[in-house]
Amino acid sequence: MTATFRRADERAADALRPVRITRQYTRYAEGSVLIEFGNTKVLCTASVEERVPPHKKGSGEGWVTAEYGMLPRATHTRGDREAARGKQSGRTQEIQRLIGRSLRCVFDLAALGERTIHLDCDVIQADGGTRTAAITGAYVAAHDAVSWLLAQSKISRSPIKDAVAAISVGIVEGTPLLDLEYTEDSACDTDMNVVMTGGGGFVELQGTAEGAAFSRAEMNALMDLADKGIGELLAAQRQALGLV
Amino acid sequence: MTATFRRADERAADALRPVRITRQYTRYAEGSVLIEFGNTKVLCTASVEERVPPHKKGSGEGWVTAEYGMLPRATHTRGDREAARGKQSGRTQEIQRLIGRSLRCVFDLAALGERTIHLDCDVIQADGGTRTAAITGAYVAAHDAVSWLLAQSKISRSPIKDAVAAISVGIVEGTPLLDLEYTEDSACDTDMNVVMTGGGGFVELQGTAEGAAFSRAEMNALMDLADKGIGELLAAQRQALGLV
Amino acid sequence: MTATFRRADERAADALRPVRITRQYTRYAEGSVLIEFGNTKVLCTASVEERVPPHKKGSGEGWVTAEYGMLPRATHTRGDREAARGKQSGRTQEIQRLIGRSLRCVFDLAALGERTIHLDCDVIQADGGTRTAAITGAYVAAHDAVSWLLAQSKISRSPIKDAVAAISVGIVEGTPLLDLEYTEDSACDTDMNVVMTGGGGFVELQGTAEGAAFSRAEMNALMDLADKGIGELLAAQRQALGLV
Amino acid sequence: MTATFRRADERAADALRPVRITRQYTRYAEGSVLIEFGNTKVLCTASVEERVPPHKKGSGEGWVTAEYGMLPRATHTRGDREAARGKQSGRTQEIQRLIGRSLRCVFDLAALGERTIHLDCDVIQADGGTRTAAITGAYVAAHDAVSWLLAQSKISRSPIKDAVAAISVGIVEGTPLLDLEYTEDSACDTDMNVVMTGGGGFVELQGTAEGAAFSRAEMNALMDLADKGIGELLAAQRQALGLV
Amino acid sequence: MTATFRRADERAADALRPVRITRQYTRYAEGSVLIEFGNTKVLCTASVEERVPPHKKGSGEGWVTAEYGMLPRATHTRGDREAARGKQSGRTQEIQRLIGRSLRCVFDLAALGERTIHLDCDVIQADGGTRTAAITGAYVAAHDAVSWLLAQSKISRSPIKDAVAAISVGIVEGTPLLDLEYTEDSACDTDMNVVMTGGGGFVELQGTAEGAAFSRAEMNALMDLADKGIGELLAAQRQALGLV
Amino acid sequence: MTATFRRADERAADALRPVRITRQYTRYAEGSVLIEFGNTKVLCTASVEERVPPHKKGSGEGWVTAEYGMLPRATHTRGDREAARGKQSGRTQEIQRLIGRSLRCVFDLAALGERTIHLDCDVIQADGGTRTAAITGAYVAAHDAVSWLLAQSKISRSPIKDAVAAISVGIVEGTPLLDLEYTEDSACDTDMNVVMTGGGGFVELQGTAEGAAFSRAEMNALMDLADKGIGELLAAQRQALGLV
Repeated sequence: MTATFRRADERAADALRPVRITRQYTRYAEGSVLIEFGNTKVLCTASVEERVPPHKKGSGEGWVTAEYGMLPRATHTRGDREAARGKQSGRTQEIQRLIGRSLRCVFDLAALGERTIHLDCDVIQADGGTRTAAITGAYVAAHDAVSWLLAQSKISRSPIKDAVAAISVGIVEGTPLLDLEYTEDSACDTDMNVVMTGGGGFVELQGTAEGAAFSRAEMNALMDLADKGIGELLAAQRQALGLV
Repeated sequence: MTATFRRADERAADALRPVRITRQYTRYAEGSVLIEFGNTKVLCTASVEERVPPHKKGSGEGWVTAEYGMLPRATHTRGDREAARGKQSGRTQEIQRLIGRSLRCVFDLAALGERTIHLDCDVIQADGGTRTAAITGAYVAAHDAVSWLLAQSKISRSPIKDAVAAISVGIVEGTPLLDLEYTEDSACDTDMNVVMTGGGGFVELQGTAEGAAFSRAEMNALMDLADKGIGELLAAQRQALGLV
Repeated sequence: MTATFRRADERAADALRPVRITRQYTRYAEGSVLIEFGNTKVLCTASVEERVPPHKKGSGEGWVTAEYGMLPRATHTRGDREAARGKQSGRTQEIQRLIGRSLRCVFDLAALGERTIHLDCDVIQADGGTRTAAITGAYVAAHDAVSWLLAQSKISRSPIKDAVAAISVGIVEGTPLLDLEYTEDSACDTDMNVVMTGGGGFVELQGTAEGAAFSRAEMNALMDLADKGIGELLAAQRQALGLV
Repeated sequence: MTATFRRADERAADALRPVRITRQYTRYAEGSVLIEFGNTKVLCTASVEERVPPHKKGSGEGWVTAEYGMLPRATHTRGDREAARGKQSGRTQEIQRLIGRSLRCVFDLAALGERTIHLDCDVIQADGGTRTAAITGAYVAAHDAVSWLLAQSKISRSPIKDAVAAISVGIVEGTPLLDLEYTEDSACDTDMNVVMTGGGGFVELQGTAEGAAFSRAEMNALMDLADKGIGELLAAQRQALGLV
Repeated sequence: MTATFRRADERAADALRPVRITRQYTRYAEGSVLIEFGNTKVLCTASVEERVPPHKKGSGEGWVTAEYGMLPRATHTRGDREAARGKQSGRTQEIQRLIGRSLRCVFDLAALGERTIHLDCDVIQADGGTRTAAITGAYVAAHDAVSWLLAQSKISRSPIKDAVAAISVGIVEGTPLLDLEYTEDSACDTDMNVVMTGGGGFVELQGTAEGAAFSRAEMNALMDLADKGIGELLAAQRQALGLV
Repeated sequence: MTATFRRADERAADALRPVRITRQYTRYAEGSVLIEFGNTKVLCTASVEERVPPHKKGSGEGWVTAEYGMLPRATHTRGDREAARGKQSGRTQEIQRLIGRSLRCVFDLAALGERTIHLDCDVIQADGGTRTAAITGAYVAAHDAVSWLLAQSKISRSPIKDAVAAISVGIVEGTPLLDLEYTEDSACDTDMNVVMTGGGGFVELQGTAEGAAFSRAEMNALMDLADKGIGELLAAQRQALGLV
């Protein structure tokens, strides 16, 4: 693996793009966060609703769920508006299921009580990594919604058990890279999305060979990169939340 | 009509909320404008597509069309995501048809050539007047897309015949008001959306009695207010476009 | 405005087409009215249902709502059947929302009690002005349904506060015209639908510039025409209902 | 089978309800027929379209197809509008497939040429037997459309090979009856729809035991009734078409 | 009718294809039957659900309903997957309504109690006659589900009043044939599906002239064939259920 | 990791359930395979279609795509029929996208030529691992379809570059297990689906923490199990195809 793919802006193979986390981006949501991974911009809002879906009714437990969308011209070429087409694509559903599972993994649903936190992740601008930015930003929005619930005395202790963040890694022209941007993502042989907790455990791992199959050694290299990147994202979340 | 409804922030009955127009808000669209009427924020993008819908094929003319959406938590209470529900509401369709007609009214479709300009108006934050902000912002985005077409030598002269802007007016507790915000809109007896060209002509006029029917005198008062407000919006558009 | 567009059948610029209102057109509905504006024929039925939509449950108030449809071959060229296509067009939704708002404006929903009046307006033959004929006819059907409720002693006083009727006006080749038929509607520069109460107030006003924008003077001319036409329609309703 | 069910209006067991066939009921369709079987009223229009569905393209043959609908308040209790619900019921699809097959059976599709005749059968008022009235009326509308094609010299000879008509029969309280009205249809043990040609052959036969299974003897009795009724309907069609 | 169409495998005009009925084909359903009519294979499962649809709630009666599907490559050419297309075809709905009615005809819904038996009929391989195989197999699956209910002491006596089976008959090149396979079905002039009870009564009779209309004599010949075939199917059901 | 979860049937932690692969399970498809992993049974058919989806038109390349479905009573409790509900669930779409990507990874699309292989994977009986059985079986069906293409001389060399198979692994009560059955899957802390080629490379890796996050050591243990299991599946495929 001596290949040396040259990244835009002289970025190192193991470097994240600049990360910016802006809280209270919009006024009405209980949590509202604009997260930027370079040119990728995702608005993550957390909305508290005082009821739960049917499968949780009467359970004493709450629910955390996510929806994902992309503005039609978030991308280089305009895409169809899913509301106009009348259905969400398989890709959209796959992503919002991933975000929902990732966030539920760090929530104590009993401590949340019978209420729902809706996480809406809407991509304003897309340059690769929208799902990982969405998870990382949704955690901050969810944290703000929990702070609001505590401030309103609706709950007495936080149901959040740990932080969670996500990053993409991949192999482009033989080089393992951290945090792929769009042009890298389009060219990559292998693409992996990794979701990890503050405690260092894996929540989700989704690797796909776009071209040739990948080896265990390559996978290990990618996971080392992910581990480093997620450490930095967890720090950025803590800083944004004023927890440092 | 001696009643004197007291507006938030000491705003005068005939005053617009602060208007801000930010061009190049996102990177990829041929025109991308964030327009703000106070707390109402709408992202308007203009995308050029080198083909036309079936009813214009072979006509030598282009097409201008609009789509409208609202992020689920743009509002005080979270609304359903239309893509998840699988259809656009009647309100959404009504608004996007209005935006499309308003913009087409100032376009020379033959001069545009057989191509389409898609105007996507997505509400990031909603505090009343989203459709009028959308029309006013979409004009600026469309203007930028036309400049791009000229710069690319795809067209040799601008197909834009005139400017277009829109504002809401209404009667709240007997007082005619310009540019209703959400709480005023909810309380109003009469609500009117007015779309006018730079030349001072009407493009659309949609008045609705929410409570009691309104008289011709009331209508005239509302149209005077609209006339004043739209004059100020047209000036704001010119300033944003550097045309003054 | 000295232009003089020549109308079919020597009709004067300020003349309605022959109006016919036939009550009890079908047997089963609580109100059933065939209304004809010349060759435009709309069947308006009013159905009473002893329950209300969710947003009115437990409110003590009733609801009045409308649906609009067009038989596939009501028009010169056969249109798609909306039931077969699986969705109502934006135009259909816009019209049925307009009919519903117009009728609710003259109803005291508390006096109606927790029940719904459904107004179904189905176009049998279309020659322009279907939405205004629908509103004018739906009022008569609703009146019959209210008489039925009174006769059944389900309510003790009428919830109808005033009459309501509607007409289209427009400018064709520079001439302001009352009650546009299809060929005029297709050719018009400006098209306006006006809904007014028996008391002379405006309920809805929807003006659209199809070609050039229109001036305030033109709008005033159109509203004078509408005022005249609606006066005649209100008289036709009273006569059909035997109230004169 | 000595039981003697007493029908409304002293109607005999083997009598049709009064049949009325009104041609040119609406103005624009190439064929437009209102057919009435007593209180059942169905508007059948025939529309000529100069193209065929994909499976007939390039075949030199035409197509005949039908759609069926019921106005929401055609019936005693208001039904859902299928366009609003977003899909046609299984019953609607079953009926429109039956009408289409029945009419195609008497058409020489090659002689029709590559064009489509759309038969729209819309129930204005329903009192049992809507599908059989629709088939009987659609034949007359199709005949008028063919006359129009001949008059326009689009075809040189009629593609209609034979007449077609339909009637319902059933057993109510042990009595075999011709042409069931709604209250009889609801009470019947066996219900059969029979479609026959002018030449006396069967096109469709659909019998259903609603309660107990029926015997071959009962079936034969029903078919004798159907045979008689269809003979009268074929005569009514000929008279309406001025062919006698 | 001296014509002598030559069938595949030297099959006689009045002979069924080999019939195989395999119970407990899958593990989890209360009744699970694979039925084969020659190369036609349909999996029929019966599922008991302890609730009823809205129109039966509180009635003390149960419900029996059916759904029908075909695997995309059950046929010679792959068909669309209905789940992917987003709707069931008219043909599918027609067939599942037929299966449901046929089974309900032999059920005492009061004796079933307020529960539903869902009959899922999925075609694994299709060579003509799938709907008749489905009815015949669904009866056996329903019988097994009833035995399970009795064994579980959920009911004390069987709600099944009689057996039910179905077969197709048709006329090919002038020859009346029993149990049409796909190539015969495609070539036939007349096609009839007959559903009969163990007691010899008719439950459903659906005859269609594909080409020329058929005569009463032809219909009688077809019904004689059906009578013979259904007798054999009823025997096969009894044998499969160990009732002989 | 000394915990020792006790599996059904004395199965070892690193043992597959009995694998059975039956080719030519149905008659008409170019490839038709029933694959069984214990009680999980999936019918995989491969259908060749002589055209490609729009994004491949004129590219000279073919396409391989998959659809997944589950019979309503494949499971312990009856699930909704997706065709009746009118849409495929997010889970279904996720699975069929996974199957499609996995198979495309071992196909040389240029060598396939401009045609499509449709892989339909329908679950007859579900006891965990349906998606991994589907991938493993779909490979065999695709191989048969390719042999058919070669035999028909439609292609001159096989476009299959390598074999592909898949298995699930997971951690239940602290014990890493190979090939989870339904009860294990429901109880597991971590669940991973692994897709590998004959050459030992990874095609897809999808790990999810259902309860607590999992460590890198746990992941490595799971991948060792998967490696072993997939080796055995690849051998079973070769044997079924007569390649040993």
